Amino acid sequence: MKEIQGGVCAAKGFMAAGVYAGIRKNKTKKDLALIVSDTLCDAACIYTKNLVKGAPLLVTKKNLENGLAQAIICNSGNANTCNANGIEIAESMCELVEKFAGISRENVIVASTGVIGQPLDIAPIKNAMEALVKGLGNNSRDANTAIMTTDLTEKEIAVEFELGGTVCRLGGIAKGSGMIHPDMATMLVFLTTDVGISSELLKEALASDAAKSFNMLSIDGDTSTNDMVAILANGKAKNARIECKNADYQIFCKALNLATTTLCKKIAKDGEGATKLIECVVSNAKTSDCAKTVAKSVITSSLLKAAMFGADANWGRVLCAVGYSGADVDVSKVDVDFVSKAGQVAVCRAGAGIPFSEEHAKAVLKDDEITIQISLNSGESSATAWGCDLTYDYVKINGDYRT
Amino acid sequence: MKEIQGGVCAAKGFMAAGVYAGIRKNKTKKDLALIVSDTLCDAACIYTKNLVKGAPLLVTKKNLENGLAQAIICNSGNANTCNANGIEIAESMCELVEKFAGISRENVIVASTGVIGQPLDIAPIKNAMEALVKGLGNNSRDANTAIMTTDLTEKEIAVEFELGGTVCRLGGIAKGSGMIHPDMATMLVFLTTDVGISSELLKEALASDAAKSFNMLSIDGDTSTNDMVAILANGKAKNARIECKNADYQIFCKALNLATTTLCKKIAKDGEGATKLIECVVSNAKTSDCAKTVAKSVITSSLLKAAMFGADANWGRVLCAVGYSGADVDVSKVDVDFVSKAGQVAVCRAGAGIPFSEEHAKAVLKDDEITIQISLNSGESSATAWGCDLTYDYVKINGDYRT
Repeated sequence: MKEIQGGVCAAKGFMAAGVYAGIRKNKTKKDLALIVSDTLCDAACIYTKNLVKGAPLLVTKKNLENGLAQAIICNSGNANTCNANGIEIAESMCELVEKFAGISRENVIVASTGVIGQPLDIAPIKNAMEALVKGLGNNSRDANTAIMTTDLTEKEIAVEFELGGTVCRLGGIAKGSGMIHPDMATMLVFLTTDVGISSELLKEALASDAAKSFNMLSIDGDTSTNDMVAILANGKAKNARIECKNADYQIFCKALNLATTTLCKKIAKDGEGATKLIECVVSNAKTSDCAKTVAKSVITSSLLKAAMFGADANWGRVLCAVGYSGADVDVSKVDVDFVSKAGQVAVCRAGAGIPFSEEHAKAVLKDDEITIQISLNSGESSATAWGCDLTYDYVKINGDYRT
Repeated sequence: MKEIQGGVCAAKGFMAAGVYAGIRKNKTKKDLALIVSDTLCDAACIYTKNLVKGAPLLVTKKNLENGLAQAIICNSGNANTCNANGIEIAESMCELVEKFAGISRENVIVASTGVIGQPLDIAPIKNAMEALVKGLGNNSRDANTAIMTTDLTEKEIAVEFELGGTVCRLGGIAKGSGMIHPDMATMLVFLTTDVGISSELLKEALASDAAKSFNMLSIDGDTSTNDMVAILANGKAKNARIECKNADYQIFCKALNLATTTLCKKIAKDGEGATKLIECVVSNAKTSDCAKTVAKSVITSSLLKAAMFGADANWGRVLCAVGYSGADVDVSKVDVDFVSKAGQVAVCRAGAGIPFSEEHAKAVLKDDEITIQISLNSGESSATAWGCDLTYDYVKINGDYRT
């Protein structure tokens, strides 16, 4: 299994494009993306758990009832959510793909990200469709740029792996989960693969992977109305189609997880205002749920996030977040270490502080990728969560006046 | 029922003192407080739900098993938590009260707030005891100052009310719940009353009040290891002792709630780095739990808190936090208004945005006390939660290097 270039165009038979349609005022930033497969794909999607769901999600859900899709269209600049005519507009976007790319409207996944509660005008999208379709090619990066809102970096990944001797590929693009002025933005992830796999198993693989990847990711604890992760599998690699949970399925899941966790880390590191990626690894927990609960509690603590920004080895805040997580933990057994490329520092053993060099700790925490290692010493389960530090810029970005 | 002066010394038979003992390095700030009653009191206490509990809480719990107490001793500057000898030190503090104030060590409530994981030296406390006891008098403000850590303002309240024609008093002091460098600080609330009431009913009144007051308060979502709310009732008002849930009990609960909600608002307004108090009032909910869940979800949203800092009428963030709260809400029925002394602005009706004057909204949100009114239009229950905005200073205070 190895990382390759190409993003959503790495897998055979996929093309992508991104253009500036005029949904956003800023003309230097693309705002409309299209990803298509040569042939119809098995497809799966997971959606935000927020009760407020964007209109595009509802339309996508309907279109994916048969587990098939062939294209993804996505705009940034407007989330098409909490509008009177949201469904109508989302359906119009699918119709435009049918009209301009010749892909049946029922086989289109539609997504939007941006400000909510403001009508999305279909006109600029319609006017841009010809250029968008003409732009289709090995342009994963363009599509990535077009779905970004306040993201500072592109988030692309592709991996190559073998299924029964057949070389297969899986790639993806993402936009970050910080929610921001003037947008209430979103985490969007679009994945493509040339693996042949039934839509049922694709759906199961995606859902069980998300529990370990995207659901363990937190920028600020807020869950957007438009979060969506979609995957298209067109079978063009010509592997033996995966129809049951065989060895190939396990390999596919591994490749999927490599792609999703890589995207998670990229999203976390590019969290609004973030200066560093924080990874929390909880081990030796009684149960997997316990490990997950603790890891998420630590990664979402505002106090801890601010301490990480300040490169402050304030392990008391880690222990505190373990203590209030709600997980069944014997706090008198907890060990805590901070780890980065600059080294490792043990700060807490059996629930109590131990002497450590503040200088060394500061050097470790000054790195831009920090791992907080927590051993609960009560079992054999583990979990990892990703987040970022809390900075002045987070407040600045999100405190700015909307208009 | 009216507000009066005096804090914890407003009720008959209570005295307080606060001195600088030398636990904190900063000599301009008192760090040791004592509150005593002339006579033995019925007493009750509620504690942090964090699994990591400070040693003082464990000692207090033991001392309060019989529902009686006569004094409260509290230091700031060190939380006496996650130390090898925490219990021993907390017990020594009680012994010092016995030795210097003649109050049996078993009748002492002990609390600490400050950095965790560092041994608390008993020597400075011992050396300060004579001055502390000598200082006992109508000095609620001194005691308040001595329990403060990063609090910028004192938090005092007292109310006067009648039970069956007898004038009674209830007062309290508090320190804020932001948790901060170098302290992992704490919410501490000490209440005194001259009402005669059984310790069982006192405990019940305190617990059921906390569900509506302190448990609806959030500065940053983090729960400290040392949070404690204690109340002493000495019966010196000579009311008919409350032994059952009669009309007097209801009046007492009302007085208690006036005191606790006032302290909640003062704590929220003085949250770390806060520039304004945010109150979230959820009404017309199906159940009280639903209303509480929604109110707390909104008040703890980092995005919303940053928007309030920026005086940004970003109602989408309110709706979003309603949507992910986990409460059973029909989002298509939700109304949202922002209210302050500067006026009221309706921003969302039936789950969708409505036109409003951005200028007026900004004027409303520039006030230092904002109420977010949310009507779920699905029932008759309501709840209120208190919090504050998220600011540059929160990050600064909590990101500073600990040493």
